[in-house]
Amino acid sequence: MIYLDNAATTRPDEGAVEAALPYLHEKFFNPSALYGGGVLVHEEVRRAREFLLSCIADKARYELIFTSCGSEADNTAIFSAARRGNAVTSAGEHAAVYQSFTELKNCGVEPRFAPLKGDGSVDGEALLSLVDEKTTLVSLVHVNNETGAVNDIASIAKAVKSKNPRCLFMSDGVQAFGKLLFRLTPEIDLYAISAHKIGGLKGTGALLKRKGVSLSPLIFGGGQEGGFRSGTENVFGILAFAAAAKKKFMTLESEFSRLKTYREQLSSALDKGIFTRISPKDGTPYILTVAAKNLRGEILQRLIEERGVIVGTGSACSSKHPTSRVITACGVTKEYLQGVLRFSFSPATTEEEVIAAAEAANSAARELIARTARS
Amino acid sequence: MIYLDNAATTRPDEGAVEAALPYLHEKFFNPSALYGGGVLVHEEVRRAREFLLSCIADKARYELIFTSCGSEADNTAIFSAARRGNAVTSAGEHAAVYQSFTELKNCGVEPRFAPLKGDGSVDGEALLSLVDEKTTLVSLVHVNNETGAVNDIASIAKAVKSKNPRCLFMSDGVQAFGKLLFRLTPEIDLYAISAHKIGGLKGTGALLKRKGVSLSPLIFGGGQEGGFRSGTENVFGILAFAAAAKKKFMTLESEFSRLKTYREQLSSALDKGIFTRISPKDGTPYILTVAAKNLRGEILQRLIEERGVIVGTGSACSSKHPTSRVITACGVTKEYLQGVLRFSFSPATTEEEVIAAAEAANSAARELIARTARS
Repeated sequence: MIYLDNAATTRPDEGAVEAALPYLHEKFFNPSALYGGGVLVHEEVRRAREFLLSCIADKARYELIFTSCGSEADNTAIFSAARRGNAVTSAGEHAAVYQSFTELKNCGVEPRFAPLKGDGSVDGEALLSLVDEKTTLVSLVHVNNETGAVNDIASIAKAVKSKNPRCLFMSDGVQAFGKLLFRLTPEIDLYAISAHKIGGLKGTGALLKRKGVSLSPLIFGGGQEGGFRSGTENVFGILAFAAAAKKKFMTLESEFSRLKTYREQLSSALDKGIFTRISPKDGTPYILTVAAKNLRGEILQRLIEERGVIVGTGSACSSKHPTSRVITACGVTKEYLQGVLRFSFSPATTEEEVIAAAEAANSAARELIARTARS
Repeated sequence: MIYLDNAATTRPDEGAVEAALPYLHEKFFNPSALYGGGVLVHEEVRRAREFLLSCIADKARYELIFTSCGSEADNTAIFSAARRGNAVTSAGEHAAVYQSFTELKNCGVEPRFAPLKGDGSVDGEALLSLVDEKTTLVSLVHVNNETGAVNDIASIAKAVKSKNPRCLFMSDGVQAFGKLLFRLTPEIDLYAISAHKIGGLKGTGALLKRKGVSLSPLIFGGGQEGGFRSGTENVFGILAFAAAAKKKFMTLESEFSRLKTYREQLSSALDKGIFTRISPKDGTPYILTVAAKNLRGEILQRLIEERGVIVGTGSACSSKHPTSRVITACGVTKEYLQGVLRFSFSPATTEEEVIAAAEAANSAARELIARTARS
């Protein structure tokens, strides 16, 4: 099987799992315990935290709070920061941000949604026009998980702050961390990341937070994570996260170039009579999203799977909906709206695989067209 | 090393990890994905859910929501159920419940704390007297994690409901699940459990919920867990949880008797001139808590560790505080308050280990007394 749904989840990196395994077995101690084993594990968690922080931020200015997933990191940031007035986001957010913003209405905060351009990136001017003196939070996804479009969060955060300096700026960086070369700029207050999108494990995420930004915990209790997130630390997941990130950051630039080439090869090899490309050229090289005219994505997905290739149809988290909220917001026309396919890559992806994937997609689409013509 | 801090965390069961490992490696798919691998993993998660539910509840009446830990399960229940008026709990709760109740003040809900008896169980009559027509939630820990006292939650829930039928009743069952023989009775609406206390992994817990009880999620997003808890499921942790529970429930009664005998052996072997017992005879056999007169628990703990035995000093989650809120609420007198030691057991605990632990504790205490006398 060729697996090209890495934006949904990646196969855990064997080396990262291997590195963390001792902390699942012999070094299984509770990091809050005061005896030797507990202290040792606590120290390992601290080192993992420092390392992950150092990958994208100035350690003197930011701190990192481990969470159970990217969604928890997003929710913690949003419900802490958006306390009154209004909060601004885009129509292209992952459900963890979008649904939290929808829920803000019940907390007395007005959610505002900025429109998207055709590639899934935000219309920056429209977003800025929604920011006013009552805006307490702006949240903008770094890489759109359905199209791969990259938002220029550094510039937008700067523009937001110059319009309203007290407003907090956060970004969901789940599809960017370990994949794009960037560092947090001073105007970015909060940044959410996830382990299982980069070869770590499901069940681990983190929220990076500029020092001085006050957070109210989502989970109260034993006071772990500096009081910002209680609950016994998922030590195994945390150490695997750091080990996976180490690998990703070492090869970040070479992987970026390599996958960009593959993405374009795949794109070129797709039948232009059937598929139209949604992902922009300057988007993440890890995602290529296309749409087939008048065909249904989930049927195509099954026919492609029969040909030995696994692809996505958009966000796995929204897989139960026939059309995608985000793709609709891109202004994709009706005949393409149900035919979305997302190819997403990982360090394990090879040139042969992307070529085979294109052939499988073309052949599956032709079969479906022929079938439809017959009926 | 002899490990007797199993109430803080247990060594993951090797068989349970082994059973779940394929879902970390080759079957790593996102359970929301619609292709074969995703559907397979989704089905395995469903089976784990059904199994865990069946261990303590009637599947027709209850449902189970996976969370990232016991603390998250407690927080989800409390912030959903305690929406107005007042909420009643005990002074003997784990921090995940106690701190959440303290936070309720900021949500316009009055928290009320019922006093404890000397063994750490709640004063049931005092608790009932705090319940009135404005009480929206009563939360009572099933097994006190610091003393091992068992609260009769079935009877207390019944009494609460007969006083106020609209009030919800929840229990933190983290130290009870897989260790005590019991099933949820109809008056128990919500019940929190955790994997890493029974040979599962840190990073997995669950909330059992009576069908019909409405919950508001703590984490919004992709709508996983029936919309009650968004975020990609921690498949590996969930499957290890079910496998660990399977083992625990198969041997629950025999382990109960075996550890009860060991607990009493340990208790008898401790020097009565130094240690006074806090844990009741009818408490969980998994915990024996004692206090040494005019000695400091954390120093004793270190001296015992030097003798090859790891013990706790109370709740690992509160290990940074010199005296315990819960032990103080038990009415333990001042000269014993800083000298608390908690021995807690697992299926791996042997008779030789508990005897050695008693000897180590006696010898450590004598050394500390001699040292104190000299200075």
